[in-house]
Amino acid sequence: MSALTFTASVYAARLERAAALAAEAGFDGIIVGPGPDLQYLVGVEGDTIERLTALVIKPGMTPTIVVPRMELAKVRSTGADELGIIVADWVDGQDPYALIADTLPAATRVGVSDSLPALHVIPIGQRLAVRLELATPVLREGRMIKEAAEISELRRAGAAIDAVHRRVPELLRAGRTEREVAADIARAIVAEGHRTVEFVIVGSGPNGADPHHEVSDRMIEDGDVVVVDIGGAVPSGYNSDSTRTYSAGTPEPSVAERIAILVQAQQAAVDAVRPGVTASDVDVAARRVLSQAGLAEAFLHRTGHGIGVSVHEEPYITPGNDLLLREGMAFSIEPGIYFPSQWGARIEDIVVVTADGCEQLNVTEHALTAVGAASATDESRSDSKV
Amino acid sequence: MSALTFTASVYAARLERAAALAAEAGFDGIIVGPGPDLQYLVGVEGDTIERLTALVIKPGMTPTIVVPRMELAKVRSTGADELGIIVADWVDGQDPYALIADTLPAATRVGVSDSLPALHVIPIGQRLAVRLELATPVLREGRMIKEAAEISELRRAGAAIDAVHRRVPELLRAGRTEREVAADIARAIVAEGHRTVEFVIVGSGPNGADPHHEVSDRMIEDGDVVVVDIGGAVPSGYNSDSTRTYSAGTPEPSVAERIAILVQAQQAAVDAVRPGVTASDVDVAARRVLSQAGLAEAFLHRTGHGIGVSVHEEPYITPGNDLLLREGMAFSIEPGIYFPSQWGARIEDIVVVTADGCEQLNVTEHALTAVGAASATDESRSDSKV
Repeated sequence: MSALTFTASVYAARLERAAALAAEAGFDGIIVGPGPDLQYLVGVEGDTIERLTALVIKPGMTPTIVVPRMELAKVRSTGADELGIIVADWVDGQDPYALIADTLPAATRVGVSDSLPALHVIPIGQRLAVRLELATPVLREGRMIKEAAEISELRRAGAAIDAVHRRVPELLRAGRTEREVAADIARAIVAEGHRTVEFVIVGSGPNGADPHHEVSDRMIEDGDVVVVDIGGAVPSGYNSDSTRTYSAGTPEPSVAERIAILVQAQQAAVDAVRPGVTASDVDVAARRVLSQAGLAEAFLHRTGHGIGVSVHEEPYITPGNDLLLREGMAFSIEPGIYFPSQWGARIEDIVVVTADGCEQLNVTEHALTAVGAASATDESRSDSKV
Repeated sequence: MSALTFTASVYAARLERAAALAAEAGFDGIIVGPGPDLQYLVGVEGDTIERLTALVIKPGMTPTIVVPRMELAKVRSTGADELGIIVADWVDGQDPYALIADTLPAATRVGVSDSLPALHVIPIGQRLAVRLELATPVLREGRMIKEAAEISELRRAGAAIDAVHRRVPELLRAGRTEREVAADIARAIVAEGHRTVEFVIVGSGPNGADPHHEVSDRMIEDGDVVVVDIGGAVPSGYNSDSTRTYSAGTPEPSVAERIAILVQAQQAAVDAVRPGVTASDVDVAARRVLSQAGLAEAFLHRTGHGIGVSVHEEPYITPGNDLLLREGMAFSIEPGIYFPSQWGARIEDIVVVTADGCEQLNVTEHALTAVGAASATDESRSDSKV
């Protein structure tokens, strides 16, 4: 019985494409360690760190997977058999790098996947006596351009996280701690159809000014701006990621004004997305709106990141990235503004590039959303938009 | 305010020791990426993959941490300031590898931490124009030999997971699915003092024959042997890991007999632990008992792994590993026997090497423990030992 997300033919086509791209790039072989590249190519993520699991792709040859014998059942439960991949298993005490070397005799140009840890990169390089290269340009090509079935899964994930954001006004209010709110949100992420909770950021007041703040025991106060950035994986392994900014009661007018500009910046970036523009163009579109309002310095990070079987992947929507956008790319658009020790705000949607623009997978209200102040009861809580 | 687990002086001493060991090993510098080595050395794990965070240790010099500006708050909340580490921050669009190169001018021998991903290993190697080496021998030295305060934390973790195993007879019985039991165990792991649930394996009947099976929707049946392998991190980040084997009602006599031999094998390995013997000696002690009973082929994996701020770390208790055990090393002893498509069993304790033997951190009953069969009610359930 197969535990594959898609049919075996989908993985077969991906493997064939990766081998063709490897040949085009002049690689004799590509070594794919545990992580999203492995999940994308053969439907199994691989889950040990110190014991080597690695798929070896060679132009024109059947792929081989080197795998600890104790992981064999997991590999067999997925696509390895159906895909006709050669399995080279090993047990503790054996040298797995010798198996890699056997698979790649006389190789001179060998690529490795991004996530392969140094623990394996260094001995593989020594054993093969080659200077390893990153296989990123080969491996990102397949993962970056989503197939129709993958876009369906991203839509499912987007709808699931939107359902959670619609419940945030029930859960978030002054008088509760970030941690209490986050625990409720985590339960809602699962209840709304995710298999895993990947992250829950609830950044209230000054904590919102740290883009990577997670949660704390800080109690949310009247007037706080609160960043809620949440995501998880649906059963197929595809991820959601959406951020909205809320206020506990009514924020100061100057705060609401700045957040309105942020919403415009996010929309400008969404509007800039279409095939043929660069990743940088999209980043610049958000940055320009913020700059015109004197907020350039408050925007500390890139505009977005690709998403799929991993939460962060290519393409990165970064200043200076001249990668051309193509139909089927999926990424976040998430400008933010941060005022150290005061407050922060961020608005984030996942978009998929279409023939002439993009499809937004997150459609809940983008404007700052006021939720209950401490004095409000469950009945009288204000959920009005600011 | 510092969020460090131990006082800053503990981390300062660890950093100084790592620099001295790096000098001894002839390294000009060691690059430590996110992961347990970073957590051990400066009290922060680092949590981005694609954005480089790396600590650079140089003999005789102040360490530098290269860190994305958006992660700066997290680094500052821990030890960086107190430890006087130089902070080199960067923003999206900048080249972090240039910062690494600036820190290591004219370096010829450079080591990297095990967990640094290829995504950073390859460009660092190119930028520095050196053949990078693994810094494992330098970095494992500190982490392998636990300080008294670390042993206290491992004791705390051991007691917490023992408390969970004591509750398993209330949770595990025929008629429930592995997933239902695992969900209850996960809650108990948190309730008994862990901050995170790292893994919950409930392998019933044939699922127990796969050492890395996690959970499934299989319903536990009367007479099933069930492997329960569980662990989590206590608030300081130190991990627990303990396995016991249960039976739903009374198992077949031949099964009980084999599990009794497994318990002897586990005890023989525990008895073999003392300073000066090799890791392999401990592995052989377990393997010998199983071989004598004709069960050598059923034992598919190594006898154990080190544990600390990560669940799997050095020393590995593997056939052929001639590493000498020293006082303060902490690792699992977990032989198992596996009969494909039928059943499996494993018994696991964490031990700490003492001056003349070892301290066992898990002390719940090792023998096969019978829990409720489907016919038993909550009141009449048999919890007797087999």
